Amino acid sequence: MTICPSDIMLNRILDNDTICALATPHGMGAIAVVRISGPKAIETVAALFQHLGKPLETSNIVSHRAYHGHLNNKGEMLDEVLVTFFKAPHSFTGEDSAEISVHGSVFVQQKLLQVLIANGCRMAEAGEFTRRAFVNRKFDLAQAEAIADLISSESEAAHRVAINQLKGGFSKELQVMRSKLLEMTSLMELELDFSEEDVEFADRSQLKALLNETLEHVNKLKDSFRLGNAIKNGVPVAIVGQTNTGKSTLLNALLGEDRAIVSDIAGTTRDTIEETLNINGILFRFIDTAGLRETEETIEKIGIERSYRKIAEASVVIGMLDATKGVDDMLVAAHEILERIDLEHQQFILCINKVDMLEDQGEALLGHLRTDLDNDDIMVICLSAKQRFGLNDLYNALKHSQPLASPDATLVTNVRHYEALTHASEALLHVKEGLEMNIPTDLVSQDLREALYYLGSITGEITTDEILGSIFSRFCIGK
Amino acid sequence: MTICPSDIMLNRILDNDTICALATPHGMGAIAVVRISGPKAIETVAALFQHLGKPLETSNIVSHRAYHGHLNNKGEMLDEVLVTFFKAPHSFTGEDSAEISVHGSVFVQQKLLQVLIANGCRMAEAGEFTRRAFVNRKFDLAQAEAIADLISSESEAAHRVAINQLKGGFSKELQVMRSKLLEMTSLMELELDFSEEDVEFADRSQLKALLNETLEHVNKLKDSFRLGNAIKNGVPVAIVGQTNTGKSTLLNALLGEDRAIVSDIAGTTRDTIEETLNINGILFRFIDTAGLRETEETIEKIGIERSYRKIAEASVVIGMLDATKGVDDMLVAAHEILERIDLEHQQFILCINKVDMLEDQGEALLGHLRTDLDNDDIMVICLSAKQRFGLNDLYNALKHSQPLASPDATLVTNVRHYEALTHASEALLHVKEGLEMNIPTDLVSQDLREALYYLGSITGEITTDEILGSIFSRFCIGK
Repeated sequence: MTICPSDIMLNRILDNDTICALATPHGMGAIAVVRISGPKAIETVAALFQHLGKPLETSNIVSHRAYHGHLNNKGEMLDEVLVTFFKAPHSFTGEDSAEISVHGSVFVQQKLLQVLIANGCRMAEAGEFTRRAFVNRKFDLAQAEAIADLISSESEAAHRVAINQLKGGFSKELQVMRSKLLEMTSLMELELDFSEEDVEFADRSQLKALLNETLEHVNKLKDSFRLGNAIKNGVPVAIVGQTNTGKSTLLNALLGEDRAIVSDIAGTTRDTIEETLNINGILFRFIDTAGLRETEETIEKIGIERSYRKIAEASVVIGMLDATKGVDDMLVAAHEILERIDLEHQQFILCINKVDMLEDQGEALLGHLRTDLDNDDIMVICLSAKQRFGLNDLYNALKHSQPLASPDATLVTNVRHYEALTHASEALLHVKEGLEMNIPTDLVSQDLREALYYLGSITGEITTDEILGSIFSRFCIGK
Repeated sequence: MTICPSDIMLNRILDNDTICALATPHGMGAIAVVRISGPKAIETVAALFQHLGKPLETSNIVSHRAYHGHLNNKGEMLDEVLVTFFKAPHSFTGEDSAEISVHGSVFVQQKLLQVLIANGCRMAEAGEFTRRAFVNRKFDLAQAEAIADLISSESEAAHRVAINQLKGGFSKELQVMRSKLLEMTSLMELELDFSEEDVEFADRSQLKALLNETLEHVNKLKDSFRLGNAIKNGVPVAIVGQTNTGKSTLLNALLGEDRAIVSDIAGTTRDTIEETLNINGILFRFIDTAGLRETEETIEKIGIERSYRKIAEASVVIGMLDATKGVDDMLVAAHEILERIDLEHQQFILCINKVDMLEDQGEALLGHLRTDLDNDDIMVICLSAKQRFGLNDLYNALKHSQPLASPDATLVTNVRHYEALTHASEALLHVKEGLEMNIPTDLVSQDLREALYYLGSITGEITTDEILGSIFSRFCIGK
């Protein structure tokens, strides 16, 4: 059942294509890099290249050396370039490769690709360089996926998780589990061969202990997905409350302050992340919700229903109260929100807004609310979104709302991995039940195989062409 | 008077800063390249870098070799990178340099720059790498400007002109002229030293011949600016005619066809070049004009005045006639446009539109018009913009409207160079007049010095900090 990746990919690799693509972002820059990989990468590039005014002899090319010279096309100079050759297997893809640094005009980038294609290369598909690296066993599938995560990481925390996965820690954990389970399976299947004789090669109590340990490990990884996903895609934060409590003002105040906190060296992606906020390296994703209030109006009802759904999906809920409304109304509003919250899995931060409009009784009010809510899991913050007062307390509350993952902890961030771990966990649970109920070995062994299959699918030890296609098509072209 | 560039730049270079910048376009890509240059470039990067799990000893670093490894910041891995070191003077800037290829996430790019800055580097100003290369005499000013042109070139023709300038042909021509003029000036100034004795070291007839030759050369270069500028920024084409002759339909038809003719490998800048058209590697820039007609309405009059100005600025004028209007009206309209055109400097293409709506008399009409206009400089094309009939004739006419510059011809494309050549030409004319009118040598010599100054300012042999600042600030950061 174990399918070696290189078997699956055989038909693709038999093509023996040399592929090319722009590796740097699109657009104009000082330089752009075009990447070429495949059996003819070195000779194709060398044929177009002149070093110190002379053609570069393929046999003299030193791997990993940057050559400065001219790129010519049909006798006409295309650009002054820097070319680095990488001889197989010492390249990213494991194949013969070359990287050409050209001047970063859009024209030169396109022209160079056209020239390469005219000389026998083919445009790479999305993720094809990484796919080839995977096929050539430069890294496993989880590490390949870490590269895509690394490229799209927007915060320090997301970056760190991707780096850890790239370093192979996650893959290693999976490998250790798999090899233990594999050993167990072999022993159980050996029993099947001798089934007439009723022997037990595998010590059942030892099996159970190993199983429990593995199941616990798989579940721990599976459960890390909530945090891992939040780190990768941003921690979802819902700001809820009745109408006119100042939800939008708060969001604007938070994002406005953001511009001061996160100083981008070169403004780049600002307009696309308008509603995310990077606080101390953790990305928070703010979800605007409609104001909550009793209504008979159909459309408004739908909006409020949606708000409740968003509350359920959020990791952190900020409940907004209007300080000018008086204690009784505020308590009613607070409890209405609280009812919708699962305090075991969600963080709740209660914000009493508009405190700048209170008279002296502010302290008393706050004390009253705390006493009433009487819950250590709820943080109560007084602020004025409009006057930008008390925002620092909220930043701190948000920062501390997220469990601090140890820098080296393995966090699952990928839905595919999460699903595979869920399936593996279920299969292992079946095995456990089977062992406890003394179900026939062949049935138990089938469940064990299933768990092995799912664990193996994460690193790509077991995979299908379809899975690979779906994974790598999400990469950008040039990677 | 000759100021050496390194003198001018001395105060800047004394800073001895090590600079860094992103060299690839902003945004997400498979990889991004950060460039570092300056006396501490190599040690700064080496200190952050681990090759094969060990720090890289600065003394062991081989220039131009790509090292694969990890970039660490305070013990934490920032990314898996490829680092290439370039030891002075064998680098782009002529200084010690390094290029780091990182995974192309916006986060990593920014983080790396932050880390470099924390380790003593400074963000490069726009064009500072090229400026340093100029100061270190890797190329002259005209070549440095060619790099900026190369990066922003949008068509094959613009690219070729920039490449020629980068190769130094233009600089060489200027150098030859300058050294001849310089020799002449020295001889004349020698005469001044012996002015009491009334000797002539410089043969006046030889002087005049050389002067005529130089003046002709300077004027030829100066005049090439019209074509060079058209190639660089697009050939300005005005489509003019009375209202409802189909000007906008024609523009849309031309641009619509464009999408089929120019196949971008990856759609990039489409939305910013909506009104330019690349035909066989030459960029045409279409200028929409208001319809021409007799009017008393003030605002419309202004629009029509503007149309006439645009006609005057265009290199090519397409005059639109409505074939359904009958011969007499068409002739009047054609002559109205012709009156505004300078056939010596402008190409005129007369388009008889809506020929699909004519009955049999089309041939007769065309014959009649040709006879009447009776001018080999005018091309007459029959077409239907709506039915997209006859467009190929127009493409061909546009293509041939531009004088074919020989691939190696020097074309001036830079306004600064054009202005310097214009001043030099004027100064040389004064010298010529001076010699003819036997004006005292010291006055003539002053004009010669002026010509030398302007010619030298193009390549930067003579320059000021202000000029340099204005040139390099137009570069992108990272170049």
